[in-house]
Amino acid sequence: MKRVVTFGEIMMRLHTPGHQRFLQARSLEVTYGGGEANVAVALAQLGVPSRHVTCFPDNDLGRAASAFFRQHGVDFDRTVYQKDQRLGLYFLEVGAGMRPSRIIYDRYDSAFANMDPAAFDWDELLADACWFHWTGITPAISDNAAKACLQALETASRLGIPVSADVNYRRNLWQYGKTVQEVMPALVEHCDVMVCTEGDAKDIFGMETNGFQDMAEQMLARFPNAQSIIATRRDTLSASHNRLTGIGFSHKAGYQETDTYDINPIVDRIGGGDSFLAGYIYGRLNFSNELDALSFGTAASALKHLVEGDFAQHSVAEVEQILAGDVSGRLLR
Amino acid sequence: MKRVVTFGEIMMRLHTPGHQRFLQARSLEVTYGGGEANVAVALAQLGVPSRHVTCFPDNDLGRAASAFFRQHGVDFDRTVYQKDQRLGLYFLEVGAGMRPSRIIYDRYDSAFANMDPAAFDWDELLADACWFHWTGITPAISDNAAKACLQALETASRLGIPVSADVNYRRNLWQYGKTVQEVMPALVEHCDVMVCTEGDAKDIFGMETNGFQDMAEQMLARFPNAQSIIATRRDTLSASHNRLTGIGFSHKAGYQETDTYDINPIVDRIGGGDSFLAGYIYGRLNFSNELDALSFGTAASALKHLVEGDFAQHSVAEVEQILAGDVSGRLLR
Amino acid sequence: MKRVVTFGEIMMRLHTPGHQRFLQARSLEVTYGGGEANVAVALAQLGVPSRHVTCFPDNDLGRAASAFFRQHGVDFDRTVYQKDQRLGLYFLEVGAGMRPSRIIYDRYDSAFANMDPAAFDWDELLADACWFHWTGITPAISDNAAKACLQALETASRLGIPVSADVNYRRNLWQYGKTVQEVMPALVEHCDVMVCTEGDAKDIFGMETNGFQDMAEQMLARFPNAQSIIATRRDTLSASHNRLTGIGFSHKAGYQETDTYDINPIVDRIGGGDSFLAGYIYGRLNFSNELDALSFGTAASALKHLVEGDFAQHSVAEVEQILAGDVSGRLLR
Amino acid sequence: MKRVVTFGEIMMRLHTPGHQRFLQARSLEVTYGGGEANVAVALAQLGVPSRHVTCFPDNDLGRAASAFFRQHGVDFDRTVYQKDQRLGLYFLEVGAGMRPSRIIYDRYDSAFANMDPAAFDWDELLADACWFHWTGITPAISDNAAKACLQALETASRLGIPVSADVNYRRNLWQYGKTVQEVMPALVEHCDVMVCTEGDAKDIFGMETNGFQDMAEQMLARFPNAQSIIATRRDTLSASHNRLTGIGFSHKAGYQETDTYDINPIVDRIGGGDSFLAGYIYGRLNFSNELDALSFGTAASALKHLVEGDFAQHSVAEVEQILAGDVSGRLLR
Amino acid sequence: MKRVVTFGEIMMRLHTPGHQRFLQARSLEVTYGGGEANVAVALAQLGVPSRHVTCFPDNDLGRAASAFFRQHGVDFDRTVYQKDQRLGLYFLEVGAGMRPSRIIYDRYDSAFANMDPAAFDWDELLADACWFHWTGITPAISDNAAKACLQALETASRLGIPVSADVNYRRNLWQYGKTVQEVMPALVEHCDVMVCTEGDAKDIFGMETNGFQDMAEQMLARFPNAQSIIATRRDTLSASHNRLTGIGFSHKAGYQETDTYDINPIVDRIGGGDSFLAGYIYGRLNFSNELDALSFGTAASALKHLVEGDFAQHSVAEVEQILAGDVSGRLLR
Amino acid sequence: MKRVVTFGEIMMRLHTPGHQRFLQARSLEVTYGGGEANVAVALAQLGVPSRHVTCFPDNDLGRAASAFFRQHGVDFDRTVYQKDQRLGLYFLEVGAGMRPSRIIYDRYDSAFANMDPAAFDWDELLADACWFHWTGITPAISDNAAKACLQALETASRLGIPVSADVNYRRNLWQYGKTVQEVMPALVEHCDVMVCTEGDAKDIFGMETNGFQDMAEQMLARFPNAQSIIATRRDTLSASHNRLTGIGFSHKAGYQETDTYDINPIVDRIGGGDSFLAGYIYGRLNFSNELDALSFGTAASALKHLVEGDFAQHSVAEVEQILAGDVSGRLLR
Repeated sequence: MKRVVTFGEIMMRLHTPGHQRFLQARSLEVTYGGGEANVAVALAQLGVPSRHVTCFPDNDLGRAASAFFRQHGVDFDRTVYQKDQRLGLYFLEVGAGMRPSRIIYDRYDSAFANMDPAAFDWDELLADACWFHWTGITPAISDNAAKACLQALETASRLGIPVSADVNYRRNLWQYGKTVQEVMPALVEHCDVMVCTEGDAKDIFGMETNGFQDMAEQMLARFPNAQSIIATRRDTLSASHNRLTGIGFSHKAGYQETDTYDINPIVDRIGGGDSFLAGYIYGRLNFSNELDALSFGTAASALKHLVEGDFAQHSVAEVEQILAGDVSGRLLR
Repeated sequence: MKRVVTFGEIMMRLHTPGHQRFLQARSLEVTYGGGEANVAVALAQLGVPSRHVTCFPDNDLGRAASAFFRQHGVDFDRTVYQKDQRLGLYFLEVGAGMRPSRIIYDRYDSAFANMDPAAFDWDELLADACWFHWTGITPAISDNAAKACLQALETASRLGIPVSADVNYRRNLWQYGKTVQEVMPALVEHCDVMVCTEGDAKDIFGMETNGFQDMAEQMLARFPNAQSIIATRRDTLSASHNRLTGIGFSHKAGYQETDTYDINPIVDRIGGGDSFLAGYIYGRLNFSNELDALSFGTAASALKHLVEGDFAQHSVAEVEQILAGDVSGRLLR
Repeated sequence: MKRVVTFGEIMMRLHTPGHQRFLQARSLEVTYGGGEANVAVALAQLGVPSRHVTCFPDNDLGRAASAFFRQHGVDFDRTVYQKDQRLGLYFLEVGAGMRPSRIIYDRYDSAFANMDPAAFDWDELLADACWFHWTGITPAISDNAAKACLQALETASRLGIPVSADVNYRRNLWQYGKTVQEVMPALVEHCDVMVCTEGDAKDIFGMETNGFQDMAEQMLARFPNAQSIIATRRDTLSASHNRLTGIGFSHKAGYQETDTYDINPIVDRIGGGDSFLAGYIYGRLNFSNELDALSFGTAASALKHLVEGDFAQHSVAEVEQILAGDVSGRLLR
Repeated sequence: MKRVVTFGEIMMRLHTPGHQRFLQARSLEVTYGGGEANVAVALAQLGVPSRHVTCFPDNDLGRAASAFFRQHGVDFDRTVYQKDQRLGLYFLEVGAGMRPSRIIYDRYDSAFANMDPAAFDWDELLADACWFHWTGITPAISDNAAKACLQALETASRLGIPVSADVNYRRNLWQYGKTVQEVMPALVEHCDVMVCTEGDAKDIFGMETNGFQDMAEQMLARFPNAQSIIATRRDTLSASHNRLTGIGFSHKAGYQETDTYDINPIVDRIGGGDSFLAGYIYGRLNFSNELDALSFGTAASALKHLVEGDFAQHSVAEVEQILAGDVSGRLLR
Repeated sequence: MKRVVTFGEIMMRLHTPGHQRFLQARSLEVTYGGGEANVAVALAQLGVPSRHVTCFPDNDLGRAASAFFRQHGVDFDRTVYQKDQRLGLYFLEVGAGMRPSRIIYDRYDSAFANMDPAAFDWDELLADACWFHWTGITPAISDNAAKACLQALETASRLGIPVSADVNYRRNLWQYGKTVQEVMPALVEHCDVMVCTEGDAKDIFGMETNGFQDMAEQMLARFPNAQSIIATRRDTLSASHNRLTGIGFSHKAGYQETDTYDINPIVDRIGGGDSFLAGYIYGRLNFSNELDALSFGTAASALKHLVEGDFAQHSVAEVEQILAGDVSGRLLR
Repeated sequence: MKRVVTFGEIMMRLHTPGHQRFLQARSLEVTYGGGEANVAVALAQLGVPSRHVTCFPDNDLGRAASAFFRQHGVDFDRTVYQKDQRLGLYFLEVGAGMRPSRIIYDRYDSAFANMDPAAFDWDELLADACWFHWTGITPAISDNAAKACLQALETASRLGIPVSADVNYRRNLWQYGKTVQEVMPALVEHCDVMVCTEGDAKDIFGMETNGFQDMAEQMLARFPNAQSIIATRRDTLSASHNRLTGIGFSHKAGYQETDTYDINPIVDRIGGGDSFLAGYIYGRLNFSNELDALSFGTAASALKHLVEGDFAQHSVAEVEQILAGDVSGRLLR
């Protein structure tokens, strides 16, 4: 069985226990996460073989990050360990009700940012790939990361591997001298599927759009390789209560909208988008129908909000139970 | 003051902290529980003397289980400790929202299952009893457990002690060669009060019924010693939010229905039914009115959902506050 | 910049983890709090210099309490440490849904109750003060505490320092031989602002009143120095869900009512009123408009319910976000 | 089988985790203990039925203390619960190496101190007793406690029940107006066995003595009912490493000295003396030989140092293994 | 690079925090371990590719056990998951000083015991193996496990793969009807290296021996394929303090004895022997000298005692530092 | 009373619980520390007013670090908060026995490294200083930090304030283009007291020395302002057991050597040297005798090893007890 390959940075995540604020914390809980690796691990839990490609410092923290993801069977054997580098990290405090969760990033100058693009042999890394996934965070980190990303995408295109991206514009990144507008278009050209919002379209591609469908149509027009634009519509009632709907547009299927899931109480909202993408990719690999893939992704995203950590922790059967309409949370003995 | 006597297996319960899934857990919280013992301890906390009869392995885990229940004043002095046996246990992860809580049982071949029925002198054990309670789990565990249960029930009948049962059909048990249909009728004949649902009536007694009242009437017709059939109607909005109503039918009082309690957020749903029964038995011992007993039981069940562990942790005054309509949860200084 | 000075007892707070009941707890979480000091620390976090005046036992627990508050920059350098005394404390279990939180106080005969009023040189303590705050708890504790409070108030009046009070009648205190009715009027005469409810007005001043505005008008009539009577109206839907509205009356501004905040789920309700007062004092020191002060206080109170511990943990910017209408709790990266 | 009855105060113990100092602690671990009750629970674990008599506040903390001891099967059914009282408590930080452990007591004005001696019907409480144990702490707490103690002792004498005491002079107690010298002699007259050191003999009875044996001979001469004076000799190498030897003198057996136990590392030193006494009483009830009792007590005391909490957690077999010379701590599968 | 393959049962290990006894524990720490898998994971951490072959229940506990070992890069892809089975487990409390650590096993009737030997295709599983390791625990568990073990050994012999065994006689196992004496000789015949003590030689093979060397010579005589008999000599000063020396005998190298390591304080003694074996195998694969292998194993075993959990957590460099004589534990920045 | 002023970087310290290795940790304990600030806080606990001067990122982590130190009364009001910067941090795992503790630093490019030297007005900062302390870590961090350090030292010299330094050569730092040999001599010229080892003298000043006294004499000769060279001699028996002796040389007092302290078991070795210096400075400010200062520092250092965290947690009385020879660790009630 072929693999999904993902590429991107992984950070140590240090979050305060319960609802503590940073000033109150005397301990921090440790997990590891990254937008692209979260997709790989979610797919592994759905039974899809996956490999994540990344660069870590050559120390026990880098090895701990590999170990954390390897638990779930993601292939980390191609990790590049770089001496005298640091692991990116982020600090998280979890809000409640009208108090937002907050993240303090501490990821500059990481091993990943300082990677050598030549360390990755993409022909070999993608040899048994059935899908490649990246996000707009990677080219935002450093010129080297952007270069490696482009090489990966060119290889994927050459090998005929479908590509998805969460274009995900993060204003605070992009500090190495190039702008998002300069870098992203050449990368996006290689994509079949994109998670993109109207805000992203404006910020990254300078598009003025009028609603999701209009944006999607413009995107598909501008990037002829792309076939689907997808997203989730999140109704943020509070830090503890969201509603989530999957939406998508493709030439083949037109505009699609899934059921809406009521998520209350939210356990951990981080990585909801990554679980959506993992679910959607699962759907694309297993279903013939765009809406089915979108629905699987949306249910998978909703379920992610109900576990701690950056990535999903559920099986196909658990997603299917939600899709079948059982959202009662009834005790299973 | 006479005692309520209960009989049944107690398991170690190992539950993941917070909302962790089994794969995430690096520690498990330890409590002990069992459907019948949960009734005994809830009654003790309501001021009703109680004794629980059970069989444990003769090791520190068996002794720890006794100690756990003895805290609350339940008499465990008659516990049979059996060498070279194991303690049954179950693993629990607590869901949230649309994600269900899950239980993995590991209770086969326990000290209780392997008990010697002759080890229990029911005449002595029930000498000072004012009530006897059992559940359909016990005869499902092993032939020996079923035999001991029958001996207890025959003794209770002979001594004129009222008997209650939660008939509680668990498909996954009943693996020792006899069927629920073979075993249960002879046991149920001794009962005055039964917790029974339409599903139970069908699975255990093969009854086709049309609504709770019809089922209850058929049950009372078939088991002439029985005087009341009771149950709770649970509206499962999510793993975090349920609504609960007590219902009952007896020839004397007809169909009864209590107020509905809105339980949000649920802290721990396990043992809600046991607390209902304990509250109902308390009511029967203290009130003349069937509806009052049913209402006390329902409020007691609702309160159980708001504490951790298998059994209730409340006083009579706390139940009465709910019954008096104060469900505001206003801070008590 | 001048300081807000507060005066009152601080207790060690011992609360059970999660939703455990007292009988279940094998550990207790330790923080420190007190109605007046909570105001000082909330103000310090809002950038207003503050000093708290109190009396502690001369042992490591008294020093730990000072250290806890000093974290946030409150000046504790004038603390009186008294040998052979005890620290008052209280035990807290946190409810959920219809189960109330409960407090067991253990504060009698504390270092604060046994203070020597002569130990406080109020002219010096208030020399750089721009506001003085006290509550009705202090004169309830002991005759000495009441005397020290009166001396502080007389000094504040003489120095022309504005004074606020939460009149806060606690029936269980007031055990040293004098009644609330004997003691409070002479203290309240020095106040410019009071938090007072109809119940307080009746219990403390014997007033029969007809609604908040009528009570406030009677209070302002009786205490001519007073200019504003303020309060929060709390709609207690459950221990986990409250709604909160600020209300106030002054001759200048008439009756005022703020937006209502929906607080769900409540993390920790203790100290909500103290955060309201701190926010209101902040508003009075920074805004010209009574309603703005009341609104700032109410938003600050609502935010307090969403962090653990007795006192607020938020900046001015966080309150302003709520005031600007953003109650979505959307993740901040 | 007859019971050992003990009488004395029980406190909540709040100790800092690991080796934290009070100022560092953000949580405190909760257990309960008291010199006399520690003897009762140790005996229960050695299979000797025991009852503890005490007075608690009528609140959830008093009930939690009862529950804690009841786990181990000690009879707490005669506990007097007194309204509007407090539970005595103490704070503990555990040292290491040359840094001492420290205790801060907060036990004045407790429910026990304020007990009504008439609440205890000693004839009934001691009806089935085979031994009575008290300590010099009880008469130090309050006049009422001293009176109740005297009544208990007179009853025990009248009923011919053997009595032991740890005379245990605590200078910081004895603050209610009477001196240890006034009160103790009349109590000690009823004792058969006393734990007493040269320091105690001097402080309590004004005796000038020259070594343990001389002291013991003087004590036996002065208190003709007494038959044995026992003690442990503790060589305090550090907070983490002690050596312990049991010593005793009786007319019958003369001077006795047990093996010396090397205790390293100490887990929790509190209650070592109580476990010694429990072991000695066990020995007296089961062995004919004074040295055997002393040895059993000393080994039981040594084992106590290796578990957390105020009281011993071991069976007879575990003590016997030590007595048989196996101090290797070899893993038991 | 070829792999070391190991075969055996893995249990969930539930150990009490700190030095708590089973009766005190309100939580249990969760790790997973098994004598053979511990060797595989220690080798993986030493950089030697390894695969463990086992059978788990097809539930989240089995998957959690796989995930736990997979962290460290051990290949678990050939795990057999069996429906409706249980995971073996063991409970551990950690002693101190003269108080022993204790284990309560609960491993009967596990998925591993009930395995189908036909589920393992040993030719395929051992295709890329450079070493095979098993222990005497596996054939003790069930007839099926013994059969699978024999098939593995026969395959290894046929493929010319070196084999090691820890013969490890556990009296409490061996309950399925065959005796250790009947089963083990046929298995041991395939071994090149054995960990064996004089006690094992007597219990398993009925040998009367006179010291380690005599035993080793008899073993080598009786099992002509065997080339080395190795062991550790453990001087158990207390549960907290051991001394450890590696010893071995082979025809080629004669009697060998390593340096002695002083281990104080012991953090976790479980799995010390498995780390010894892993280190020895590492040595055999990397060094030409028997004593070097023995020394590497002994240092690796000593280091294992200083980390928590069943298996070693160290790199080659860390072992080499010990071997180079640096046992000072000096801080590494 | 005048203050001791210290200057240097503070890092967040993230250490694994108990003896866990980095790969095992699922939570990290959070404290804050830095060589110079550790001196300030230790002095504050000894009753000496102190101020620490540093630069933090303008985020909640910087504020949390200030709060942590402010607990103990150190003046942090002059902290410079810098936008868009990061807090330096380090990861710690605590060894045992022959397994070393390990630190992974992650402190490059911190707010402190990127400070603007002009942000510090040393005339104002040192206006009320009685002592200034710095370490060789600060000039190693960045050119700006070295410049600020030099300005501080020149100001101190001009104001006649005594200066101490821990010259402390850390090879891994010093990466900004200048060498330790270029930078340090100009700084050291301003010092009265230096902690310096033979290794430091060689690495920093290129001195070939023959024992501590020879080194000290050469240092005093080369730096005429210097009056004392001090150090501790550490005998590292294991990570759990050290022996510590203070040594010093001055023209006035000649060679001095203190008592040796046996530290077993070590709780936390980090910051032992800082506590030595704080104790020595305390001694210099309070005693006339060099040996007394050295002894106080050595005892204070020994005590530091027995508490968790980077800095000392003891009072003068606790040090004096050790100095008086009481190293028994006997329980203090």
